Amino acid sequence: MLQEIHNAIDAVYPEMLETRRYLHQYPELSFKEFKTAKYIADFYEKIGIPYQKNVGGNGIVATLKGRKPGKTIALRADFDALPIQDEKDVPYKSKIDGVMHACGHDGHTSTLLYLAKVMKSYQEELPGTIVFLHQHAEEYAPGGAKPMIDAGALKDVDAVFGTHLWATTPLGFIQTAKGVLMAGADRFEIVIQGQGGHGAYPHETKDSIVIGSQIVTQLQQIISRRLDPLETAVITVGIFEAGNAFNIIADTARLIGTVRYLNTEIQDRIIKEMEKIIKGICIANGCNYTFNYEKGYPPVINHDKEAELVMKVSQKLAEVETVEEIIPVMGGEDFAYYLLEKPGAFFFTGAEKEGNRYPHHHPHFDFDERAMPIAAKTLISAYYAYQEE
Amino acid sequence: MLQEIHNAIDAVYPEMLETRRYLHQYPELSFKEFKTAKYIADFYEKIGIPYQKNVGGNGIVATLKGRKPGKTIALRADFDALPIQDEKDVPYKSKIDGVMHACGHDGHTSTLLYLAKVMKSYQEELPGTIVFLHQHAEEYAPGGAKPMIDAGALKDVDAVFGTHLWATTPLGFIQTAKGVLMAGADRFEIVIQGQGGHGAYPHETKDSIVIGSQIVTQLQQIISRRLDPLETAVITVGIFEAGNAFNIIADTARLIGTVRYLNTEIQDRIIKEMEKIIKGICIANGCNYTFNYEKGYPPVINHDKEAELVMKVSQKLAEVETVEEIIPVMGGEDFAYYLLEKPGAFFFTGAEKEGNRYPHHHPHFDFDERAMPIAAKTLISAYYAYQEE
Amino acid sequence: MLQEIHNAIDAVYPEMLETRRYLHQYPELSFKEFKTAKYIADFYEKIGIPYQKNVGGNGIVATLKGRKPGKTIALRADFDALPIQDEKDVPYKSKIDGVMHACGHDGHTSTLLYLAKVMKSYQEELPGTIVFLHQHAEEYAPGGAKPMIDAGALKDVDAVFGTHLWATTPLGFIQTAKGVLMAGADRFEIVIQGQGGHGAYPHETKDSIVIGSQIVTQLQQIISRRLDPLETAVITVGIFEAGNAFNIIADTARLIGTVRYLNTEIQDRIIKEMEKIIKGICIANGCNYTFNYEKGYPPVINHDKEAELVMKVSQKLAEVETVEEIIPVMGGEDFAYYLLEKPGAFFFTGAEKEGNRYPHHHPHFDFDERAMPIAAKTLISAYYAYQEE
Amino acid sequence: MLQEIHNAIDAVYPEMLETRRYLHQYPELSFKEFKTAKYIADFYEKIGIPYQKNVGGNGIVATLKGRKPGKTIALRADFDALPIQDEKDVPYKSKIDGVMHACGHDGHTSTLLYLAKVMKSYQEELPGTIVFLHQHAEEYAPGGAKPMIDAGALKDVDAVFGTHLWATTPLGFIQTAKGVLMAGADRFEIVIQGQGGHGAYPHETKDSIVIGSQIVTQLQQIISRRLDPLETAVITVGIFEAGNAFNIIADTARLIGTVRYLNTEIQDRIIKEMEKIIKGICIANGCNYTFNYEKGYPPVINHDKEAELVMKVSQKLAEVETVEEIIPVMGGEDFAYYLLEKPGAFFFTGAEKEGNRYPHHHPHFDFDERAMPIAAKTLISAYYAYQEE
Repeated sequence: MLQEIHNAIDAVYPEMLETRRYLHQYPELSFKEFKTAKYIADFYEKIGIPYQKNVGGNGIVATLKGRKPGKTIALRADFDALPIQDEKDVPYKSKIDGVMHACGHDGHTSTLLYLAKVMKSYQEELPGTIVFLHQHAEEYAPGGAKPMIDAGALKDVDAVFGTHLWATTPLGFIQTAKGVLMAGADRFEIVIQGQGGHGAYPHETKDSIVIGSQIVTQLQQIISRRLDPLETAVITVGIFEAGNAFNIIADTARLIGTVRYLNTEIQDRIIKEMEKIIKGICIANGCNYTFNYEKGYPPVINHDKEAELVMKVSQKLAEVETVEEIIPVMGGEDFAYYLLEKPGAFFFTGAEKEGNRYPHHHPHFDFDERAMPIAAKTLISAYYAYQEE
Repeated sequence: MLQEIHNAIDAVYPEMLETRRYLHQYPELSFKEFKTAKYIADFYEKIGIPYQKNVGGNGIVATLKGRKPGKTIALRADFDALPIQDEKDVPYKSKIDGVMHACGHDGHTSTLLYLAKVMKSYQEELPGTIVFLHQHAEEYAPGGAKPMIDAGALKDVDAVFGTHLWATTPLGFIQTAKGVLMAGADRFEIVIQGQGGHGAYPHETKDSIVIGSQIVTQLQQIISRRLDPLETAVITVGIFEAGNAFNIIADTARLIGTVRYLNTEIQDRIIKEMEKIIKGICIANGCNYTFNYEKGYPPVINHDKEAELVMKVSQKLAEVETVEEIIPVMGGEDFAYYLLEKPGAFFFTGAEKEGNRYPHHHPHFDFDERAMPIAAKTLISAYYAYQEE
Repeated sequence: MLQEIHNAIDAVYPEMLETRRYLHQYPELSFKEFKTAKYIADFYEKIGIPYQKNVGGNGIVATLKGRKPGKTIALRADFDALPIQDEKDVPYKSKIDGVMHACGHDGHTSTLLYLAKVMKSYQEELPGTIVFLHQHAEEYAPGGAKPMIDAGALKDVDAVFGTHLWATTPLGFIQTAKGVLMAGADRFEIVIQGQGGHGAYPHETKDSIVIGSQIVTQLQQIISRRLDPLETAVITVGIFEAGNAFNIIADTARLIGTVRYLNTEIQDRIIKEMEKIIKGICIANGCNYTFNYEKGYPPVINHDKEAELVMKVSQKLAEVETVEEIIPVMGGEDFAYYLLEKPGAFFFTGAEKEGNRYPHHHPHFDFDERAMPIAAKTLISAYYAYQEE
Repeated sequence: MLQEIHNAIDAVYPEMLETRRYLHQYPELSFKEFKTAKYIADFYEKIGIPYQKNVGGNGIVATLKGRKPGKTIALRADFDALPIQDEKDVPYKSKIDGVMHACGHDGHTSTLLYLAKVMKSYQEELPGTIVFLHQHAEEYAPGGAKPMIDAGALKDVDAVFGTHLWATTPLGFIQTAKGVLMAGADRFEIVIQGQGGHGAYPHETKDSIVIGSQIVTQLQQIISRRLDPLETAVITVGIFEAGNAFNIIADTARLIGTVRYLNTEIQDRIIKEMEKIIKGICIANGCNYTFNYEKGYPPVINHDKEAELVMKVSQKLAEVETVEEIIPVMGGEDFAYYLLEKPGAFFFTGAEKEGNRYPHHHPHFDFDERAMPIAAKTLISAYYAYQEE
């Protein structure tokens, strides 16, 4: 049966490819994925699987009840894109200026849609219930997972699985971990309130660009000097924004960024040390500040049994050459929230594209689309295996 | 005669005030002062003084030929505004979002317009020719003065005078200097080309925000360590612009700013030292950069005789309590170009507003409008005095 | 038999204590431990165990041949002290100004000496041969271990064991690890060659203190931005030395420090990145530099079987409450070299002193002396167990 | 008469040279100039001019009463040296390791001694009284001038003159100024009290070297951003001293330096801004500090009449080609104190050495010795001219 399903997945690959490339051309930013949500809803409408839309925002939950008894297992795909200019030279390049599917969520979506289409035709023999979680807004905290859970997306669900196509891991690899797989990811915003003035009279001002530059420089020392070297954390200032005339000293500077960490004690220490540095530098400069720290996605912590199950079933796939248990990955994922509620596991499906090994979130990012059926097969294999647990 | 003219200036003060406040509500950015230019042109149309428009851009040159022989003397007023949000609470506050007359050019314009109106009625007795130079784009190099000169604005002109209403100098003061009155003012733009990427993987990137912050910090040392302490210079980074997502490491950072100096040897040393720092920091970080340095307005260097003349005539005005010869002011002015071509002098007309002593280019900037007739009287007094030289 | 030996160790504890406190009062710096070496040699002379002195420097190797056949196993204790001012208030406080046993090597030495004294009385029944390695200069690379090995200290040795009394681990704990137990530890020296001059004329100089400060600041970014956050490394500048008159700009600045790492790829990247930063900052300042990087002790990598053996035998000691396998410790140790030559294991003997929990290398460092007999018993237990392997 | 004296000065030049070179070989640090003081005292003993020794420390005051009535005028020469290693290659190179006459005080001393010897032979005809002030400790605040004054060195003195041989001004130049000739010069000491510890555990410490480096870097902004660009000031950290083992994180860092300024309002603002920066950085790092700021020599402010007199008399000397009124020099001088008490003037005697134009306080500093008789002639000419005022 499973083999038959795998063959059926291979059979829909051309359509899966086409849909991925269509979505790639029309990316939408987190929380604004209205057209993509409609596309997904229409798809389920057409293939005849009942679904709910606007689940916790733009989320869509489709439910395929098998005719045979069994567990209810959710499979998740996210569908938002990023504020990056697509710089690839391919026919399916983004048509939306400054927005790009630079993290493969288009692939996740297409994978799950066609897995649903295939499984619809096996409804009669299907044990249990598959919940297709199409999640919006993974890229932008507080994310879509939490509101979807709050809206009942995991109701009656026994376990949850999900995958990320991973462009820096070779095709044919499946990677996961028992315990921590991905880091916690927070967002912060520092606003330095200096005092603006004429660019030729610095002594009458408090130059927020100079102050902000000091803060960026000093923040580096949290990682280098104030955390246990054996711990793992990252502090990135992603946006520095100050001034709007070359000859006017900027009143305010905004520094917006992210913190990644693997354990929550470190998270608390980082917040304290950031505040201390910002406060001290502002005292040194006689200026004011605001510091907003939004705790974001917690670390993705797989459940041991479910992670082992993923490793076991993926090893049986012909296309899978290597199954690895890996050390944690620093990127955050709001899949973490599902795992705080239900047993489950998240895994990476190797999708490195020959000759185009750009990291995720890069203007030249792309992935090997042959990874999509591998992802689909691993998910459905995990589904079947879990029925037997 | 001069006294009569002074009285006539006092008589038009209510209109002068109204026009200033009207212009204050409709500020326009440098090189985009289309409506203001039209307003000026219409004014000359109405009062019957011939003018040329679109002189070197949005500039307007009106020419009042006296019926008596004499010298041709240009009087100049600039009319552009700044990209600053007006935060004053007054009825004549800017109606244009993010644009503000924060340097008093509205006052300069109204002053000159009503001086023209008054002088039109003295055309019969007037010796020589008054050239009213309404200059666009003083705030933004390369400025409007140079193209207006290139377009012939100083043709046949024997001398040129101009003033700046000065909000940090008390009402009743006239300030000028023989020799250097105002600093040279340049513009630079540094683009750091790092390498972007995911905010959680700094080691795969070259973080342009961290690099830019180092450059801002190190640039401070040019003033503090590399120039003769007895020399005078300022380096201001007015804009720091990098990144557009909190969780993506920024590919590029743009630092845009200004340099002020009083002598050109210092200017050359600053350029060299800036390049050295930018290059070194980029080598330390393995990244690339572009550095564009646009030499802007040279220092405003008054001609001795004309500066003395301004001091002499202003001392005779009843409203003028103090005439000072001052040390150089750091702000640049493209009036400098007129003085490279013709004899002349620039001076400051004290315009400090009681209870509102904000510096120029500040969101709360304003000036005491009673300074406008003082400016007008000083200019026309200089005109008459120069006829007799 | 082993129990009898353990009892005998307890019996010599008062002497062991006395010797430790004596040594504590007369600490000697690395490579200058002449008196301590003589003390050790005299001790072996007195108890009648043959020894070699000046082994690879100040090292001493004593050899106790049991009358029964068996393996040859080396037990190691280091005996140098540190350039730290003792600030404790105890009767046995250092009598040498600026030198202190701030890392417990006095305890290691006393432990091994009295273990030797005890074992001498069991020579008849002793299987195999105990090699007592008294090593000089552990604190200062290139250290004493390597020259002692080169001088033949491990000749005919089958395995090697050693311990460190550990003042931040509770008494009753034994800690070790299979694989990496301690980090690699290197030394670097950066000399910035600026250009000195009068303190009032910075523009005629290249201020090596300002340049050195930039380098210290920028080095922080290697850890925070240029290494994989999941890797572990430390860069510490321990000495900053520049200038000798308050009013003279310093010609040169010397920065001397240490690098710690767990894997050698990281070591190579750090060296490259340090060079890049130093070079770039020097270009930015138009000055010269020298950068000497001395690769020091490699990571201490225990052999699995020997580490397990230590854990097994220590669990049987009445005084040992907890045996832990720990994550790597960042401090370097030249015990690493013995483990590159022979099977063996290094372990920590908990020695936290109530009410005095200062870290190693601190002016108030001390340890609970009751840890010494625990260390002795664990070492001799490992010796006996290894005979049976 | 004056011409005769000038000829006599030329006649003693060979001896003057020899004495200067002798003193050059035996430099002594400020407040420790015991042998130099003895040398001077012995000289006066030998030539028969009465003197007082130990005036306010190592100072010597010799008094030559002319037989004719007149004013009492003091001529001053300082005689201390600097903690600099002499790196010149000349036969009269310093024989004292690490100490050097790198500012020409040896020349001042020899000049004044031989002027005294010459004038002794004119005692009969001499109007008024010459006070030869041989001052110790000019290089190190609080200096020797103040205690010498307090000890009565200026008692009955009508005016005071002094000169500095100036190695960066050509031979044949005399430079002085009415008003400010030299900057005020202060000394500060910052001690950062961090928390030391093992070099591999930065998170358990507060790294005083990293903190000190931040302070050095941020101090640059006082000059670049917080003082009026038209004002003149210098902040130099001359000594950075921290740590004594490469692998121990330094507990404390000492930053010692100097501040130069031309007006005292600036001095107050600098002190405030320094305190603000140090405090803020220490808050950012959770550490303590002490900040001692010792106000040192005030600016050297010449009296107008006396400065003019120096210019007038020096113009008459055959060897003087140019007399210049100059802008202020940044180096401090405790000659300032004499001028706070009495009328007088300080001037520079050009002494640039061909092929060896190193600045004062440089390891290769030297001067053209032919400047010494020029200095002597100017001083005695001023003396005579002042008698006639």
